[in-house]
Amino acid sequence: MITIDYTLTMKENVATGLNSEVLEAIDLRFRTQLHRQLEARLADSTYAFRAGLSIAHDELPSIKRFLQENLGGMRNFVVVGIGGSNLGNLVLDRAFRGNGKSIYYLDNVEPDKIHRLFQEINLQETVFNIITKSGSTSETLANYIAVRNVLERKRLPLQKHLIFTTDPQKGYLQEIRQRDGIPTFHIPSPLGGRFSVLSTVGLLSSGFKGIDLESLLQGAHAAANDCLSDSLRTNKGLLLAALYIANYQKGRTINVLMPYSDRLHPFGQWFRQLWAESLGKINRDGKPVGQTPVDALGTVDQHSQVQLYMEGPDDKIITFIEILRHQNDISLDGEIDYFNGQTMAKLLRAQLHATQIALLQKQRCSLRIEMDELNEWNMGYLMYLYMYATVAAGELLGVNPIDQPGVEQGKEYTYALLDRPEYHEQRIQYEKLCASLRKYCV
Amino acid sequence: MITIDYTLTMKENVATGLNSEVLEAIDLRFRTQLHRQLEARLADSTYAFRAGLSIAHDELPSIKRFLQENLGGMRNFVVVGIGGSNLGNLVLDRAFRGNGKSIYYLDNVEPDKIHRLFQEINLQETVFNIITKSGSTSETLANYIAVRNVLERKRLPLQKHLIFTTDPQKGYLQEIRQRDGIPTFHIPSPLGGRFSVLSTVGLLSSGFKGIDLESLLQGAHAAANDCLSDSLRTNKGLLLAALYIANYQKGRTINVLMPYSDRLHPFGQWFRQLWAESLGKINRDGKPVGQTPVDALGTVDQHSQVQLYMEGPDDKIITFIEILRHQNDISLDGEIDYFNGQTMAKLLRAQLHATQIALLQKQRCSLRIEMDELNEWNMGYLMYLYMYATVAAGELLGVNPIDQPGVEQGKEYTYALLDRPEYHEQRIQYEKLCASLRKYCV
Repeated sequence: MITIDYTLTMKENVATGLNSEVLEAIDLRFRTQLHRQLEARLADSTYAFRAGLSIAHDELPSIKRFLQENLGGMRNFVVVGIGGSNLGNLVLDRAFRGNGKSIYYLDNVEPDKIHRLFQEINLQETVFNIITKSGSTSETLANYIAVRNVLERKRLPLQKHLIFTTDPQKGYLQEIRQRDGIPTFHIPSPLGGRFSVLSTVGLLSSGFKGIDLESLLQGAHAAANDCLSDSLRTNKGLLLAALYIANYQKGRTINVLMPYSDRLHPFGQWFRQLWAESLGKINRDGKPVGQTPVDALGTVDQHSQVQLYMEGPDDKIITFIEILRHQNDISLDGEIDYFNGQTMAKLLRAQLHATQIALLQKQRCSLRIEMDELNEWNMGYLMYLYMYATVAAGELLGVNPIDQPGVEQGKEYTYALLDRPEYHEQRIQYEKLCASLRKYCV
Repeated sequence: MITIDYTLTMKENVATGLNSEVLEAIDLRFRTQLHRQLEARLADSTYAFRAGLSIAHDELPSIKRFLQENLGGMRNFVVVGIGGSNLGNLVLDRAFRGNGKSIYYLDNVEPDKIHRLFQEINLQETVFNIITKSGSTSETLANYIAVRNVLERKRLPLQKHLIFTTDPQKGYLQEIRQRDGIPTFHIPSPLGGRFSVLSTVGLLSSGFKGIDLESLLQGAHAAANDCLSDSLRTNKGLLLAALYIANYQKGRTINVLMPYSDRLHPFGQWFRQLWAESLGKINRDGKPVGQTPVDALGTVDQHSQVQLYMEGPDDKIITFIEILRHQNDISLDGEIDYFNGQTMAKLLRAQLHATQIALLQKQRCSLRIEMDELNEWNMGYLMYLYMYATVAAGELLGVNPIDQPGVEQGKEYTYALLDRPEYHEQRIQYEKLCASLRKYCV
């Protein structure tokens, strides 16, 4: 059960808050035009995370069979992927204990990271899941080469220690797969990385860890049902998008997500990609738009960021996430008087509410999302809700939330610097540019 | 060796960059007035991180003796602290391998976090360092109670498994220390949490891990020597502060620190506290100021945040951190043509430079900090440089960088919600406020 409490971002309660009229106007925009556009996008192959839910559901039996038949003897699962091929896995891994098996991550390309991993794990009991939709992500391919070289050096069978997750048709991994007989899962073609957690991308590692995949998908399905209508009044995803974008339009250029739980910290990192990469771009009117997402953590960031949130510029909308019931709570009975009769979870929740009301007194706006407990159903719900809200926010800002044209140039220069012959022109351009600069360096 | 390259934030190279005149004007402000103020602050007890270096140096022999005599048989060191009592330790821990011993962290108050830790470690071989300057931080005291209860239940001697690090005179831990004979280290009174990494706060866990403390302090000392004069031309700390604040004054309200190394990721989290909590406040003219720090990570965030940095609003100044030499580099020779002859570290560095030049083409400003290699000397240098630059930035913004008045109200409400009798009035105020709100909740 997920609740959105937006009491403390409305003008009746906070002088700097939103007028109901602003939300009414956004509601009208959705009802008259934007919701139709949004539905067209969701029906279109490029926004398939809604349709993807039933594909995922149909694939569950084969995923489970694979896990049982092929990975039963494995202790470690290494996710080799970056961005959308990595963050969703991390969210589910850290949120749930599952069966206690371990998941590791190779995203960055750093020698030290690989050395540490290979020191820590027993390769005999380890499977590496190489995840790249395009099949050409350079970091993921570099880590794949490093992993493959080690497996070959140790004479471990590739078919047993590698799994590919990639586009069903194109890309480099498709070739290797056929040549070497590597077990391969497909990412439904239309599904972009940052919208892919509830597909084979996220389900394989989660299934390995014994996370309840049915419940996860059921929660997402319930969220999909709560995100159908064309009005903020009856569609939670539209409401969430409207709250964030109305705040953005009031100058709140920073969107802080602050769960009060270490177990939800990666959810903030996942959200951070979703929001930044989907919305940070040139809009239909040629204007650069995008709210900068910040992943904070309570209570930890009360000792780091909250001073700024309280007294710094009013350029942030802050969303607290509260877990109402924590399992195996810990008593604080002991030698400190005011802790007697208290528990750790009570302290955690008191800190959240105290911070939110203290922000109110500084006229700073915030939302609070409550979940009754941290379980798979709620996580599936929350992830779907945020994916939907992100696409809806794209409609409000007038951007295409699915592409990421701004990162192409950097990729090309990288290949140029690696001396790929196809990027020779770019290399010349790069060097000319660098040579023209006046250096400032101390 | 640390270099600041600010080529790509100057107007001659980037149309949206800084005029030399702007830097000249800041230079004049420092020379005529602000540097004198800054020196007064650094001489004053409340900014003792410069003077603290020689205190730390004098304490090294006794820290080492303690580690040898008392902790020789221990395998695990748990830092129990939050904010400034935690982040600096994490920076040094993740940056260096040391002797391979493990450091764990209890900062947040979450039942699950404690349970996981106690499951993972063998308590017999574990020492808990309770770090709180004031001796009253509620999260740290709550974790202390939980740890103490477990140690007592297992009949493990407190004198062997607990260490306190706290103010030499005041606070709750001083009482317990005397009663129970717990080994105790002092935080020099004037040293605020976020400026305390190079004191007993950070040196004990680092020493336990076999990190080279002399070299760390020597690097910091070298930085102190490079941050003495009253002019940007000859004082790197003033220059860094000027670059950040001149960008802030041009509307770059977000300060992104993006090291290209997992080993430096916690440095970003440490910086994030330093910058936010020191500068995010009401300034001398009654205006809310403060640049929002963001800790990014390369290359990972090229697949998450860089789209927004490229095409979103020009409201960010981005600092890349590059490590020039990586140890034990990994060859990418194998079946992918363009990787042959390349290494992982070369790919990592190519990604950084490609991204920086791609940003230039979008007229987005950035800096680059280079370190020849990631060693203790450079880390000490970098931490000192940023502490000094933060205090210098405080002078430019007209705020007192040492206090954090904005978090008091939240602390008081927390105590009120825990029913501490001394906070009864606050409790009534809190409830009245909540009762007056019109609820918005779905």
